Amino acid sequence: MSGASGEAPVLALDIGGTKLAAGVVDAQGAVRSFLVVPSEAERGPDPTLDRLFELGRRAAEESGLSWAEIAAVGIGCGGPLDAERGVLLAPPHLPGWRDVPVGLLAEREFERPVTLENDATAAAAGEHRWGAGAGTRNMVYLTISTGVGGGAIIDGRLYRGAHGNGGELGHVTVDWRGRPCRGCGRDGCLEAYVSGTSIAERAQELGLDLATAEEVAHAAVAGEPMASRVWDETVEALACGLTSIVNLFEPELVVIGGGVSRSGEQLLGPVRELVRSSAMRPAGESVEIVVSPLGERVGVVGAAAIVYDRSELRAARENV
Amino acid sequence: MSGASGEAPVLALDIGGTKLAAGVVDAQGAVRSFLVVPSEAERGPDPTLDRLFELGRRAAEESGLSWAEIAAVGIGCGGPLDAERGVLLAPPHLPGWRDVPVGLLAEREFERPVTLENDATAAAAGEHRWGAGAGTRNMVYLTISTGVGGGAIIDGRLYRGAHGNGGELGHVTVDWRGRPCRGCGRDGCLEAYVSGTSIAERAQELGLDLATAEEVAHAAVAGEPMASRVWDETVEALACGLTSIVNLFEPELVVIGGGVSRSGEQLLGPVRELVRSSAMRPAGESVEIVVSPLGERVGVVGAAAIVYDRSELRAARENV
Repeated sequence: MSGASGEAPVLALDIGGTKLAAGVVDAQGAVRSFLVVPSEAERGPDPTLDRLFELGRRAAEESGLSWAEIAAVGIGCGGPLDAERGVLLAPPHLPGWRDVPVGLLAEREFERPVTLENDATAAAAGEHRWGAGAGTRNMVYLTISTGVGGGAIIDGRLYRGAHGNGGELGHVTVDWRGRPCRGCGRDGCLEAYVSGTSIAERAQELGLDLATAEEVAHAAVAGEPMASRVWDETVEALACGLTSIVNLFEPELVVIGGGVSRSGEQLLGPVRELVRSSAMRPAGESVEIVVSPLGERVGVVGAAAIVYDRSELRAARENV
Repeated sequence: MSGASGEAPVLALDIGGTKLAAGVVDAQGAVRSFLVVPSEAERGPDPTLDRLFELGRRAAEESGLSWAEIAAVGIGCGGPLDAERGVLLAPPHLPGWRDVPVGLLAEREFERPVTLENDATAAAAGEHRWGAGAGTRNMVYLTISTGVGGGAIIDGRLYRGAHGNGGELGHVTVDWRGRPCRGCGRDGCLEAYVSGTSIAERAQELGLDLATAEEVAHAAVAGEPMASRVWDETVEALACGLTSIVNLFEPELVVIGGGVSRSGEQLLGPVRELVRSSAMRPAGESVEIVVSPLGERVGVVGAAAIVYDRSELRAARENV
């Protein structure tokens, strides 16, 4: 579609399991407006999308731009989804949502071309275009929140995999006979150890009365021995999974986002040491591992980035 | 260098730990000649390279082409190596070889432009250009012999990683507290379970008097219980590692080469089932897993493929 200018600002929407976000992002990556509400996705697609679109309208108003200046809409959501057709297939974080044609519904609502993308893939694009990865040729983005996902930039381009759902970075094995992984059903995935859900669960299994990964992190800092044990295992698992990812992709940079990344150097300090000493040379020696500078805005920034990505890709194809 | 025509036949050399191979390969992938000798690499770089170059001369003679028709030389060797400078750094399969400028030495010998590449990366290029992967956009090649290596084709292009040593596919974790990996020093890599070396070693640890992976495979078929146990663990480890690789790369196709792949369906039959049931959808459902059709010629075919790859890349850059 030619309506999506490569330079005009984009309305970006992010459909998460716990929150909906909307913002207007311009071609320099500046976030002109940013709004978040609880998603209440259990109420089903129709009321939730109504609220998302309403949030989008408000984000457009608060951006200080006229509606006519906004050329396109980008939407990020957890997969599996069909990016080509703009359809959410059956995302596990949105129970009961099956085959929802979000792209079409948003096009009708906003009368703008709409791009739908896996949220972790989009976040990787956002970090590469305007975040920690700007200027890199090979980088990996890993998001650690209720689940673990990610995306890769390879030779300067977003890698989308044979089927467009990007790399499933949370589903690299750490321990082949380890904890069952809720996300995919097999045993011992990275996600089964380092997701926020798993960190809290493993603490509870050791008898701790802690509800979240953040509480486990604080208890570990305070010297609680069982919490420290859970935290150390989390560090070991993340370092192991990242080492495999670094060995396979040889990236210059790994960017870690998602709620669990807010623990910052408590997590990344020891992980960085372990990856550097364990990964193959020269990749292991030189890889940088940093916390996402985009933070909670990465979903919206990513959803905008993929609109610009697609637009450039189309332009490049038309020029061939 | 402009001397390397994109269409003329190539002299391809393969420096392995146990054998040296040479052949002439034309632009259609036809192997015009193919010669193999034991490498005897422990005698050091000078006598070994003399024998390799002599083998190359003979391969050229036996190809039925005149020397003038051969435009370039491709060399594959296990890493780490510096492909850009044509230098072998310190390949573990060639003990005592350090910083050997193979590219320069071969250029002097043959008076042709020389391309040096990691052998597993080159093999991936060969399988993509003329083997099982012809026509695919995303494929992975895994070679299982004394060690485990591989390469990936991503969006139709050979992936070389940030530092040009390609993906280290043997060094994805299977079991984070598992067997030490000789190749990289950390614990529980895929290579530590499925390499030919490891298969034989694990059988010996169980008291079996078997010297090679092939003997273990035969004993397992014959119903020897300890050999079957080793074989089953090998299947489980390979399926686990491949599932991680499939989840990360989402390839259409996985091609398995190297000596251990000669066990064919005894290995790949159960591995295929496990990967299909364990990997994320849709990648897991659709991925094909096949034995390399190029067999022992993959080293030479791969070394030729990278000459054509580089030549096309140069041509594409010059046309930009």
